[in-house]
Amino acid sequence: MIPSGFSFSTANADIDGSSSARDDIGLIYCSTQASLCGVFTKNRVKAAPVLIGMDLVKRGTIRAVLINSGNANACTGEAGVNDARTMMEAIGSRLGIDADEVIPLSTGVIGVRLPVDRILTRLDSLVGSLGDNVEALARAMMTTDTYPKVVSRGVGRASVLGIAKGAGMIAPNMATTLAIVITDAIIERTDLDRTIRDAVKSTFNAITVDGDTSTNDTLLALSSNMVKADLDGVRNTIVEVIRELAMMVVRDGEGASKLIRIDVRGCATEDDAKKVGKTVAESLLVKTAVYGSDPNWGRIMAAIGYSGADIDPADISIHISGHPVVEGGVEAGEFKEGVVKSALEGKEVSIDISTGTGKGAFTIWTTDLTHKYIDINSEYRS
Amino acid sequence: MIPSGFSFSTANADIDGSSSARDDIGLIYCSTQASLCGVFTKNRVKAAPVLIGMDLVKRGTIRAVLINSGNANACTGEAGVNDARTMMEAIGSRLGIDADEVIPLSTGVIGVRLPVDRILTRLDSLVGSLGDNVEALARAMMTTDTYPKVVSRGVGRASVLGIAKGAGMIAPNMATTLAIVITDAIIERTDLDRTIRDAVKSTFNAITVDGDTSTNDTLLALSSNMVKADLDGVRNTIVEVIRELAMMVVRDGEGASKLIRIDVRGCATEDDAKKVGKTVAESLLVKTAVYGSDPNWGRIMAAIGYSGADIDPADISIHISGHPVVEGGVEAGEFKEGVVKSALEGKEVSIDISTGTGKGAFTIWTTDLTHKYIDINSEYRS
Repeated sequence: MIPSGFSFSTANADIDGSSSARDDIGLIYCSTQASLCGVFTKNRVKAAPVLIGMDLVKRGTIRAVLINSGNANACTGEAGVNDARTMMEAIGSRLGIDADEVIPLSTGVIGVRLPVDRILTRLDSLVGSLGDNVEALARAMMTTDTYPKVVSRGVGRASVLGIAKGAGMIAPNMATTLAIVITDAIIERTDLDRTIRDAVKSTFNAITVDGDTSTNDTLLALSSNMVKADLDGVRNTIVEVIRELAMMVVRDGEGASKLIRIDVRGCATEDDAKKVGKTVAESLLVKTAVYGSDPNWGRIMAAIGYSGADIDPADISIHISGHPVVEGGVEAGEFKEGVVKSALEGKEVSIDISTGTGKGAFTIWTTDLTHKYIDINSEYRS
Repeated sequence: MIPSGFSFSTANADIDGSSSARDDIGLIYCSTQASLCGVFTKNRVKAAPVLIGMDLVKRGTIRAVLINSGNANACTGEAGVNDARTMMEAIGSRLGIDADEVIPLSTGVIGVRLPVDRILTRLDSLVGSLGDNVEALARAMMTTDTYPKVVSRGVGRASVLGIAKGAGMIAPNMATTLAIVITDAIIERTDLDRTIRDAVKSTFNAITVDGDTSTNDTLLALSSNMVKADLDGVRNTIVEVIRELAMMVVRDGEGASKLIRIDVRGCATEDDAKKVGKTVAESLLVKTAVYGSDPNWGRIMAAIGYSGADIDPADISIHISGHPVVEGGVEAGEFKEGVVKSALEGKEVSIDISTGTGKGAFTIWTTDLTHKYIDINSEYRS
């Protein structure tokens, strides 16, 4: 279900110079002024499209999103900003809108200038082929993703559509994720903004694959405000779509063979729970133990211990996929190694950690660390 | 060169139950009261021998060190502390010293009780075979280490001997490193203490393999105070021995194929330089890029950006093994991809990062992340 007012197209600009047949640029167009909100990477090193996007979000409305994969346009200095502006102007003039009504999104290799000339030759085709092929757009955004990520939900007569890319460098603070949420529901821009900011806390900022935070992370929300719908319903649907996109991204974590959900509770503060969850989620020893279906709970204990959270080891209890593993900081009486090993062999593993009687809790999702992750990230691409 | 007063022995207690022929317990004995200093893990989850050792260091003197590999005696609660005390008493009575004159050190799997009975049957053999085989002791301490780590240096007529184990879970704050520095040089205990505390800052706390911090890290320094020597010389030699041990540990990082030295300078504070160094050193994307000899400097830029240090991307310059890579936050004019790729193919890689004109600097050592690391840490050992 495509939200009213929006259309999509893709083209092949051979951005990475590999002569691949894959489309690598994409356009989202709105037939009316769409309200625009955004959340951007907290990395100090921000890509050119992020610097431009942060400015455009202050304007508050937009007509088009121009996306490319294969090149992040990051660490390219003033030249990179000018490259992005050249494309914004070129697509704007073809669409009959201002350059500042086009927001750019880029993902891919860092430090290489965009092949602007090649992109410019494809813009007519992009504008000429606008239609409803959202999946093609999601594919054109992909880098190491293994599948396109599209979520669609209705809410009354309105609809919410989510599109994302991301598979590596995923970490709290939204590393190399590009996500776009589009709706035709009437919603105040301040409501839309608050909704996406709340949503990312427990979704895109609660997933981690390798702890690396990217230069390009962006989540945009656009509304054409064409359809009246229940506001609470719209808000909830947006949160749900964002959550679903985040889960699709973490499931597609580079080389991942298992999805790991880590629930932490009983901490003095939510911040402590977050520290515990993030440290366990990013421990290479925990991730490799899960990969190897090794019920080595000592690695989880060690990670909790160095998380920086204010905890007493004697208060810790741990369950793996529902099975007791640690009680009072030592091996649980009911611990059955074979049972836990079998549980770890599943595609989805949960680690429940209680560190006491406090009210601080946090849930984080991650993946195991596999040989394939090393393959993907150590392969030299000239 | 063995410092006067000290002797060593090892035995096979089959601690991990694998029936391996490898010696896995070791004894260091001092014929006189040795002064004792120690630095211990900052992990909140501390192994039984760490809890006991922290107490014993307050006493200030010691006669023996009882070491085992194959079992960390961590997350074993009160029972684990009692197990350690049982061994301290048993070895003490055989040596004719107090139980509290024996300091225990353990390394290996977490959460499993020590096979105390098996160890007790080997103590007579341990006491009966004291001699000068330091290398055998270093071997008995090994877990995933691929070689024993012993360093010996003379200073006048005195000598300093260092023994260490460690190959995984190495991180700032001395993860699963056991290191023992032994000297016969006369040195005040307060001097000895200050010397090792200063030394670990730029050595064991400046190496990282996987960012995991262990429950058992311990560095002990013992002096028999039998030989007069120049104090500055003694201090410098101790620092040198500790540095050499730390380098041996990081070089033996699990699965490592390359040693990476990261020099950070130009930061506002030393703390910022440390943040940058640690973040780059622990970035899986940087580590896998080095493994694959991929001159993908964007990954270094991204890691600097999310390190939390107060830096302006436009001030960053990076050299890889002496070759310019980034200048002013963008690709250096002299960047030659082929040259940098060749440099990355070496066994030792240096990454020099300058983030401005501040005086904050820090050097950190790490290794690449390889398929073998995944092999070592995902293999299920029942």
